[in-house]
Amino acid sequence: MEHPHAMALDARLQSMPPVAALAARLDGCDDGTLRLRAPLSMNINDKGSAFGGSLASVATLSAWALASLKLLEAGFAAAEVYVQDSTVKYLVPLFDDLVATATLAPEQDWSGFIASFAQRGKARIRLQAQLCRNDGTPACQFDGRFVALAVR
Amino acid sequence: MEHPHAMALDARLQSMPPVAALAARLDGCDDGTLRLRAPLSMNINDKGSAFGGSLASVATLSAWALASLKLLEAGFAAAEVYVQDSTVKYLVPLFDDLVATATLAPEQDWSGFIASFAQRGKARIRLQAQLCRNDGTPACQFDGRFVALAVR
Repeated sequence: MEHPHAMALDARLQSMPPVAALAARLDGCDDGTLRLRAPLSMNINDKGSAFGGSLASVATLSAWALASLKLLEAGFAAAEVYVQDSTVKYLVPLFDDLVATATLAPEQDWSGFIASFAQRGKARIRLQAQLCRNDGTPACQFDGRFVALAVR
Repeated sequence: MEHPHAMALDARLQSMPPVAALAARLDGCDDGTLRLRAPLSMNINDKGSAFGGSLASVATLSAWALASLKLLEAGFAAAEVYVQDSTVKYLVPLFDDLVATATLAPEQDWSGFIASFAQRGKARIRLQAQLCRNDGTPACQFDGRFVALAVR
């Protein structure tokens, strides 16, 4: 992880007991995407596949972390990012480690998000995340809206 | 917990490491609803409120457990219930323990679900779950579709 803000962001993730329980860790960020990884062993259900709640959690966290990272990159350390709503589709069972890749949703852009946050101390963004099997088959798709608020 | 199937269902929940990590436990079931409870301390985020992934997990699990319970009540022990898709709305931060109450979604009925499972070994149902603050204010609303499959 070469990204200058990655260590700070990962420390923030690990400070949350439920994130530590998922054993979710930043796995990389480049070119507008962010990857979060969690081992299957910590997130397995009674059918031997990834637990749906863990899939949703890792996807939500990857998108939350991407928005947080973009604010850090723009110099806004005192920002809090909240998920507002989300839709998750569970396509096929996942028997591999959980790796969520977060990206912008279509027709969204970071420059508008950052400009809005700078001007009003509040900004919204829609993000997507996907988890795939090791062979590339999509297993879980997440779409969610987030709001960033300046901490007073 | 007086329900005859509650102990078996809770044991199945506790067998999943991510559910044990949430410290989620069955809290009651009556009259077509099921409650699942998890302590805030195990599910707290960096803002001191309930972690979004835990809210989604507890809501999903409560609905999953309700569908599983209805199948157990109908005598189908060899059924596996999967979440197919879900929408979660995060309304206000929750600073209390996480208590999800699952119910049928509008225009759904258990008799059709059980009849379909009995006939085809497969059935679908749409369920809702809600988590409220201790003062009754809704904090999180879940709506999801589940499929039950007979284990061959």
